[in-house]
Amino acid sequence: MAPAEILNGKVVSAQIKERLKNQVIQMKEEVPGFIPGLAILQVGNRDDSNLYINMKLKAAEEIGIKATHIKLPRTATESEVLKCITSLNEDLTVHGFIVQLPLDSENPINTETLVNAIAPEKDVDGLNSISAGKLARGDLSNCFIPCTPKGCLELIKETDDTKPNGKKIVGDVAYTEAKERASFITPVPGGVGPMTVAMLMQSTVESAKRFLENFKPGKWIIQYNKLNLKTPVPSDIDISRSYKPKPIGNLAREVGLRTEEVELYGETKAKVLLSALERLKHQPDGKYVVVTGITPTPLGEGKSTTTIGLVQALGTHLHQNVFACVRQPSQGPTFGIKGGAAGGGYSQVIPMEEFNLHLTGDIHAITAANNLVAAAIDARMFHEETQTDKALFNRLVPSVNGVRKFSDIQIRRLRRLGIEKTDPATLTDEEINRFARLDIDPETITWQRVLDTNDRFLRKITIGQAPTEKGHSRTAQFDISVASEIMAVLALTSSLEDMRERLGKMVVASSKKGEPISTEDLGVSGALTVLMKDAIKPNLMQTLEGTPVFVHAGPFANIAHGNSSIIADRIALKLVGPEGFVVTEAGFGADIGMEKFFNIKCRYSGLRPHVVVLVATVRALKMHGGGPTVTAGLPLPKAYIEEDLELVGKGFSNLKKQIENARMFGVPVVVAVNAFKTDTEAELDLVSRLAKEHGAFDAVKCTHWAEGGKGALALAEAVQRAAAAPSSFQLLYDLKLPVEDKIRIIAQKIYGADNIELLPEAQHKAEVYTKQGFGNLPICMAKTHLSLSHNPELKGVPTGFVLPIRDIRASVGAGFLYPLVGTMSTMPGLPTRPCFYDIDLDPETEQVNGLF
Amino acid sequence: MAPAEILNGKVVSAQIKERLKNQVIQMKEEVPGFIPGLAILQVGNRDDSNLYINMKLKAAEEIGIKATHIKLPRTATESEVLKCITSLNEDLTVHGFIVQLPLDSENPINTETLVNAIAPEKDVDGLNSISAGKLARGDLSNCFIPCTPKGCLELIKETDDTKPNGKKIVGDVAYTEAKERASFITPVPGGVGPMTVAMLMQSTVESAKRFLENFKPGKWIIQYNKLNLKTPVPSDIDISRSYKPKPIGNLAREVGLRTEEVELYGETKAKVLLSALERLKHQPDGKYVVVTGITPTPLGEGKSTTTIGLVQALGTHLHQNVFACVRQPSQGPTFGIKGGAAGGGYSQVIPMEEFNLHLTGDIHAITAANNLVAAAIDARMFHEETQTDKALFNRLVPSVNGVRKFSDIQIRRLRRLGIEKTDPATLTDEEINRFARLDIDPETITWQRVLDTNDRFLRKITIGQAPTEKGHSRTAQFDISVASEIMAVLALTSSLEDMRERLGKMVVASSKKGEPISTEDLGVSGALTVLMKDAIKPNLMQTLEGTPVFVHAGPFANIAHGNSSIIADRIALKLVGPEGFVVTEAGFGADIGMEKFFNIKCRYSGLRPHVVVLVATVRALKMHGGGPTVTAGLPLPKAYIEEDLELVGKGFSNLKKQIENARMFGVPVVVAVNAFKTDTEAELDLVSRLAKEHGAFDAVKCTHWAEGGKGALALAEAVQRAAAAPSSFQLLYDLKLPVEDKIRIIAQKIYGADNIELLPEAQHKAEVYTKQGFGNLPICMAKTHLSLSHNPELKGVPTGFVLPIRDIRASVGAGFLYPLVGTMSTMPGLPTRPCFYDIDLDPETEQVNGLF
Repeated sequence: MAPAEILNGKVVSAQIKERLKNQVIQMKEEVPGFIPGLAILQVGNRDDSNLYINMKLKAAEEIGIKATHIKLPRTATESEVLKCITSLNEDLTVHGFIVQLPLDSENPINTETLVNAIAPEKDVDGLNSISAGKLARGDLSNCFIPCTPKGCLELIKETDDTKPNGKKIVGDVAYTEAKERASFITPVPGGVGPMTVAMLMQSTVESAKRFLENFKPGKWIIQYNKLNLKTPVPSDIDISRSYKPKPIGNLAREVGLRTEEVELYGETKAKVLLSALERLKHQPDGKYVVVTGITPTPLGEGKSTTTIGLVQALGTHLHQNVFACVRQPSQGPTFGIKGGAAGGGYSQVIPMEEFNLHLTGDIHAITAANNLVAAAIDARMFHEETQTDKALFNRLVPSVNGVRKFSDIQIRRLRRLGIEKTDPATLTDEEINRFARLDIDPETITWQRVLDTNDRFLRKITIGQAPTEKGHSRTAQFDISVASEIMAVLALTSSLEDMRERLGKMVVASSKKGEPISTEDLGVSGALTVLMKDAIKPNLMQTLEGTPVFVHAGPFANIAHGNSSIIADRIALKLVGPEGFVVTEAGFGADIGMEKFFNIKCRYSGLRPHVVVLVATVRALKMHGGGPTVTAGLPLPKAYIEEDLELVGKGFSNLKKQIENARMFGVPVVVAVNAFKTDTEAELDLVSRLAKEHGAFDAVKCTHWAEGGKGALALAEAVQRAAAAPSSFQLLYDLKLPVEDKIRIIAQKIYGADNIELLPEAQHKAEVYTKQGFGNLPICMAKTHLSLSHNPELKGVPTGFVLPIRDIRASVGAGFLYPLVGTMSTMPGLPTRPCFYDIDLDPETEQVNGLF
Repeated sequence: MAPAEILNGKVVSAQIKERLKNQVIQMKEEVPGFIPGLAILQVGNRDDSNLYINMKLKAAEEIGIKATHIKLPRTATESEVLKCITSLNEDLTVHGFIVQLPLDSENPINTETLVNAIAPEKDVDGLNSISAGKLARGDLSNCFIPCTPKGCLELIKETDDTKPNGKKIVGDVAYTEAKERASFITPVPGGVGPMTVAMLMQSTVESAKRFLENFKPGKWIIQYNKLNLKTPVPSDIDISRSYKPKPIGNLAREVGLRTEEVELYGETKAKVLLSALERLKHQPDGKYVVVTGITPTPLGEGKSTTTIGLVQALGTHLHQNVFACVRQPSQGPTFGIKGGAAGGGYSQVIPMEEFNLHLTGDIHAITAANNLVAAAIDARMFHEETQTDKALFNRLVPSVNGVRKFSDIQIRRLRRLGIEKTDPATLTDEEINRFARLDIDPETITWQRVLDTNDRFLRKITIGQAPTEKGHSRTAQFDISVASEIMAVLALTSSLEDMRERLGKMVVASSKKGEPISTEDLGVSGALTVLMKDAIKPNLMQTLEGTPVFVHAGPFANIAHGNSSIIADRIALKLVGPEGFVVTEAGFGADIGMEKFFNIKCRYSGLRPHVVVLVATVRALKMHGGGPTVTAGLPLPKAYIEEDLELVGKGFSNLKKQIENARMFGVPVVVAVNAFKTDTEAELDLVSRLAKEHGAFDAVKCTHWAEGGKGALALAEAVQRAAAAPSSFQLLYDLKLPVEDKIRIIAQKIYGADNIELLPEAQHKAEVYTKQGFGNLPICMAKTHLSLSHNPELKGVPTGFVLPIRDIRASVGAGFLYPLVGTMSTMPGLPTRPCFYDIDLDPETEQVNGLF
């Protein structure tokens, strides 16, 4: 046998690295901002491993690969390591990674399980069985060869001799490393260290290239669902049930969420963690579209349906990244008289029964938190009324094992009172009195109990009539849960920290001296945050055509602002990326939901809206034009089912005013004319023509209820164009204006009122809130949604009226004042025949029947 | 080249099948009941595939393999097929399976993804990449070779010639099949049909053999968590937080649940579907252990802690299959004065904050369902009072598009009224009156509203005072949610169908004529079932040491029966298998929770209990022996922290009586003496000795609070022995006895009363309920838990008393009558300083602080 020829790994590997460096430069030129990524996951911290890892990190830096070194302790369990591997599999900035496991793990770790968990397309070490299998089958186009043998082969290839037999390959890294890193294959004796490193780099660059070939930057790879349209259109529940939703975890991955950012709630719902927002904070936002409507009529406009139809069109048909963000409906009305809120026909969020019932329990959490505050108010008043200062103080700051100390929340109250002490023993009697007595004036209590049930008998009640409450009864009421200020807080908050703060700032009453009493004073604000810790995470669902939907928060649209959560919109805007769309829906007509969307929600979020979609129907416009009254149960009057261009033309006034309202904010308006089968082409064309003549960017006919996304294709294209058009968003009023002026601006500009009139109670409250420091809050008008004026009977565009302001309330935690224009019902009732008569569960199939 | 030699596959394959047949016979002899299982998953329905599948099914039958043919339509989506593969991976009765995909699938199906989803140990076709990788690496001990080439090789091996080159292998199945089934490897030309089938059978038998080698019949393969005990024992929340729970999906698989039977709720909680019960219905039950206690004192006994400590000992230390089944605690008291219910110290359910807060929303669902009934009652009374018969009927049975018809629930009411009509037009005026008017007598309403909040001001209220309710106000009350009859229904139901029935049978009031009015009469029972459809699924969590726990239902222990759900116990008993243990906890002392466990819960479930664990502490016995009163906040009196054998001896009377109570049901009793650090060995020994002298099967000292499962090892061993001992379970009374007699039996035998006295209201109710047909229900005594008598002051074993029965109520849906002995508070209050003062969420770490 001839003496072995010595091949020098150092020289060859340097050549390879130089070549890779040039390839990376080229890649970065072709796709600006792109960097090949390598991760090294090291479990345990062995010195010999560290040496090689450092070599790899250094080589990556030279070549221009971004290398990350992730360290887990030797004590990490198999499932912790697995979690980390899953995360790397899903990380789009990592194109290859290697895993180094300890030989002396404390926990039972199945090496094979872990190695096989590496996604084959990122297994740049070529260690897992799938890679080995592909190699064995000769499927080399899409697999990686372990780096050490690959290095040997490459080294041989680099020399002129094509027969490796008899050569001795010597590098300067020991044989053991090769053995360790390529333990499943027969190692080539002799050191090949630099070549191993070079091969790892080469595989990573190769993987990055493959990634760029398949990956369209900023575009999701998502599976859509093809609709099989039926005529006549079946019931909402029948349609919803006939499409099997994708496993929600799959959808989450499709839209770029990582496994650790998603909490599954069964197969069709998931919560998305706020850590996703943190991860994506540098990602530019997508286009922000708000769907609103003309002044509502009993005939319905189809805002929700349009929202869903539009995202189905943008996603499934135009292949844009798109998210719908909608409100969670109250469960109470589901069993009363209202239909579902998941859209309808072939434009729905599915499964609609999950959407309309408990969902993931957010509203239940609000109910629990809200009522804890209420119980705390009455219990505190009771304990204050039945105890001396001393007894009260001793109970509030008890001696535990001989030690008496304030809790954190109590120290914060002391500070607000200007008492800078931390030792309970040092408080003076006067300070004890001020600390221990909230001294709530029962007449000023604005905090009500809530239930998510339509229970009219709780609209006004007397509480505290049991003997144990010793005669301390008072009048109170229950509202529907979505009317709770906590729901408005959930919708307007921006982070866990911000929610904690808002939940502590909520004012529940005034003291007898006129000072505001907050939930923080009651000591309950931390507990509220704990109760709401899961509710803050948006809920992921999907449309019938497989596009993603966030369902999150659903505050009342009159005493609150009627918009879904800022957090969901924000996460969605990041996930869709700069070219994508987020379509969010505002409650009631544009004079209410949209005005509040801009002046309250966008003001707090700082998000800039790109397009307003204004939904109208021929029927509803006819009613605004003076069409006859409609009675439930009776057939529709002829005017609504036969052509009447004159009526449509008259009723257009309402749509015209709402277009103007939207344009006042500097945002382009696309009118969606939601077609019914009895509408004539002439009627639909008339509305579109008039809308375009009066300031709409575009106006298009939609048939998404009957046809799904296909029926909203023209709308989607118009929205795309509008989003690209120039716009100059502006708010309507400055927060520093006096309360009365802010109300007047909304009334005159949006409602078309001549003026406003503050009745005495409202006048008084404006003064009180200004004095208490809440005068700078935005305004959330509590006005009927059935008219632009305060009189629900007045359709079209009422003029020549003075808007009466009966009272003003404050949602300090949510962050707005709400002037009451007339009386708002905050607790619906059940009719004689509630819809629960039709609802049942089939115990065999477990299907819900009779739900809408 | 010499002419090819012809090998006959038919002959060789018959020999192989004969050999396999003998192997299977032998396997079945060695492990009685065992059958090798093969599944063929066929997507689409191609004729040529069917031919081969039939050959395989026939061969399996000949050999004694149980073969299952699963068909999915050609339209099945990738995720549907994947679901089916996952299910087969997890099916312990299937040892190998093959997947046949259509060539003409309608949906985009990634063949590689699906093939690689087959668990390698069941990939008897050897088609997935892991199998190929192993084959390539020569790791043949644990992989399968594709059947066709294997068949060829085998065929050649069976002949004498060892060189295959030049031979032509001819079978009677075409080359195409070989190509199709082994598409990744180079096919051997020539038909080898029978050999392919034989090889599939051989691989299946081989897989079944490997399964038997690794599988211990009836034993879970489960990862336990090792505790790192600290002294002094940290706070419950600190301990809970310091152990990272296993991903709950992993635990579910470890205990034999299949993926499709589990709905994840995040990473630490999951709901288990009732389909698991259906799948396991032929599996014999495990041993059923109930944990109860002596009469409770303010010093606590540690029943929950003992339950968890015992399962940790049985599972982690004795390697038995074991489940704990515990109650879900009410959330209200979490913010009031009560500690957690997740156990404590090193014997806890984790994460304890999830356990103590919303969990998966079951109690919220109960609140919603309960209050829908309440709203329906008052709304119905209101509508009846304000409308004529005719108007009422027209609204209840409205004309929709000109058609008027009854809903299903209305037809059932008509039948109960004896009106056998289905056409609304044919009802007489008298029938309309009877149908449309429930005619509820407001004085008889027993249905109350509920909230899961400690709100004392709702104990007695006046409702209906708003002008919209037109003066129809009445007195009412709110109870805590767990006091709702719906909670008792959840705990006692056995299936979805049974729950639907019970939710319809709940009696809410009587009509003015004295007829019971049910939720079904109100038309709301279907909606209740829909609201409760997820709550019926038990919640899976884990102990600190990694053993499984079901948390499900938590009915009040005085006005209801205070035991967790029958469904959870049932599923757990199936999952642990005949040699395993299910430990369930009963509320309050043995006179209440245990008596109801036997007479109500076991009566309904038909389950036979094997062991009673009776928990006692030295301290509590001292109090029963006449020890001094204890005041919260003050140091414990000396008697409780220093040795006092006399006091212990006197107090033993209570333990003795409770041992007798348990033995009355014919079940062996193991006394667990839960040790405190101040207890002396002499005191602990005394209790154990006396207990054994007075009928306990065994009595052992436990230190699980400080030491986890290790501290309950002696208890676990005693429970194992007791479960193997002979027992003869019997109920205490016959349902057919008069109501008064049943009450008397419980009072005399269990409480030691001389007699009972039915006060007039109770007498009246006993008559009413008997007349209404509810006299045969079991009895659920609503008695103080603080004494064996009705006087909470009387400790030890009171004698010479007559038990007064103030009133009797009925929970007809849950299925019991509950006599009221004194006044039961069903709504706790908040103290001056509720524990919410200490509770907060750290917005950085998202950790809950201050919870116990």
